[in-house]
Amino acid sequence: MSELVGWKDIEAARGRIALLAHRTPVHTSRLLDAACGASVFLKCESFQRAGSFKFRGASNAVAALSPAEWTRGVAADSSGNHAQALAFAACLHQIPATLVMPENANPAKVEATRGYGARVVFCPPTHTGRREAVKHAVEESGAVYVSPHDNPFVIAGQATAACELFEDVRDLDMILAPLGGGGLLSGTLLAARHMAREVRVVGCEPAGADDAARSLRTGERVTDFVPRTMADGLRTPLGELPFEILRAHGLDDVILVEEDDILMAMRFVWERTKLVIEPSAAVAVAPLLLGKFDAAGKRAGVILSGGNVDLGPLFATLKGAK
Amino acid sequence: MSELVGWKDIEAARGRIALLAHRTPVHTSRLLDAACGASVFLKCESFQRAGSFKFRGASNAVAALSPAEWTRGVAADSSGNHAQALAFAACLHQIPATLVMPENANPAKVEATRGYGARVVFCPPTHTGRREAVKHAVEESGAVYVSPHDNPFVIAGQATAACELFEDVRDLDMILAPLGGGGLLSGTLLAARHMAREVRVVGCEPAGADDAARSLRTGERVTDFVPRTMADGLRTPLGELPFEILRAHGLDDVILVEEDDILMAMRFVWERTKLVIEPSAAVAVAPLLLGKFDAAGKRAGVILSGGNVDLGPLFATLKGAK
Repeated sequence: MSELVGWKDIEAARGRIALLAHRTPVHTSRLLDAACGASVFLKCESFQRAGSFKFRGASNAVAALSPAEWTRGVAADSSGNHAQALAFAACLHQIPATLVMPENANPAKVEATRGYGARVVFCPPTHTGRREAVKHAVEESGAVYVSPHDNPFVIAGQATAACELFEDVRDLDMILAPLGGGGLLSGTLLAARHMAREVRVVGCEPAGADDAARSLRTGERVTDFVPRTMADGLRTPLGELPFEILRAHGLDDVILVEEDDILMAMRFVWERTKLVIEPSAAVAVAPLLLGKFDAAGKRAGVILSGGNVDLGPLFATLKGAK
Repeated sequence: MSELVGWKDIEAARGRIALLAHRTPVHTSRLLDAACGASVFLKCESFQRAGSFKFRGASNAVAALSPAEWTRGVAADSSGNHAQALAFAACLHQIPATLVMPENANPAKVEATRGYGARVVFCPPTHTGRREAVKHAVEESGAVYVSPHDNPFVIAGQATAACELFEDVRDLDMILAPLGGGGLLSGTLLAARHMAREVRVVGCEPAGADDAARSLRTGERVTDFVPRTMADGLRTPLGELPFEILRAHGLDDVILVEEDDILMAMRFVWERTKLVIEPSAAVAVAPLLLGKFDAAGKRAGVILSGGNVDLGPLFATLKGAK
């Protein structure tokens, strides 16, 4: 068995983030259960600090730095939740953070990242542009690069969400998590294999960004593709380390979800469970609502990964309709 | 002191609904606190069964019926949360329910009410039309009329939300609740005066439906007005019984909230706390965000009354933008 990230690393992560991250609640909904024909347990990482599970991994990575590394600070490239999570974790530890964000990033997210005291460096909105900019930022500042998923501390941190769910809800038959860079899913898989061996672990990926499904099928990591999905958290290619972990521990299933179904599931969750979740989180609910696989009568855990949605366009409509 | 509704009635309500209603969680938010300059405690009735606090009053009223009355069933006129709450309460007790709803009621709400097994009778969308239709429905079916606010069992039931908040959060300086028909606010006031005498009780009313503010100022209940507000739960005139209770127990304050501020507060709560709340609930958050009165450094409880919003128009935009 691979020990790329071991149970000891996850235990250490739990200790490090115990006083930093929220233990998020598990919600259930009669209406959701009725629609799915299953008992569904929603792990609400939308209520996590900085609005997503990313804070678990980022704060574990920051807390695990050496004093010398703290002085140097941290850096990463991200246009989304990892940027805010890392900036917030650095802010709590009072160490410098540099975030490389694409020029066309959502201004609200840039503002939020700066609000945590982080330095924002803009780059061209391309894969190469980002990579070069973050390389330059790291060289210039001496900061420690914290990848959003290719980092054992980050993966161990993300695993803690599933650990809590397994503690709070007994006898789950399956657990579903969104699949993008793979940090959350590989952490979830590691937690399941240690704490709940009989649980089936299911990765849920947008059909418009199915690189992970193809990578796992062929055994060769796909990195060159153009994602087409509203699930902005799942547009990144599957990371190297998550890829290895998912293969080594035998992920049970990958389910592809169409855009219309992401939207349907997001609306269902907002309307019936009163939880604001982002499209990436809805990707892990859609398969249950669609009856895509045999969940009838089963107990299914879902990691609702985050709740960071830009409500600008939606509220513009409301204002107009008033 | 008035004993229109007494502490014993509230204690009885707590017993009756203990196994029926959810004890809803209290949420806090660093960002909300920062924006308000206060410590804010959100009592999430959006997570209550049927999506609002109304289920507390309705289920208490239904549970308090005599066996003979159970046979006759219940009836009410409501286009909103009370309809769903009463239908659901009747469904749990397996007794008949008739709901009179205006012809132009939201189809989703009609569907939800029918989904609980209730009979829906349509009426013209006028005050007189509703009153006549419900009178006819009661005469025809022999059902017990359950007013959404002019009923001591309903008010005692609504009071239980504040009771839980006072138990869960110590040393509140103030509590804010939306003010429409007055059932929730009068219950909140009764609970405060018994459990937390030093707490200032603040009613929050849309400026476009300020009948309660005027009624309390002049001492004469205003019933003839045309509400103009998106807060659909607060369009009804202040009820007789709530009016008496608010006067007898000396409500501390009424704050009027403009439409733009309702929208601002609703967006803030959705975006920053990840809670789906309806406009009527946002009315009780807006005064804190606006710094409308001196809450600086204080501990403020807010009853987030419900989360039933029609997301149709909003999601139509998302679909278009995809």
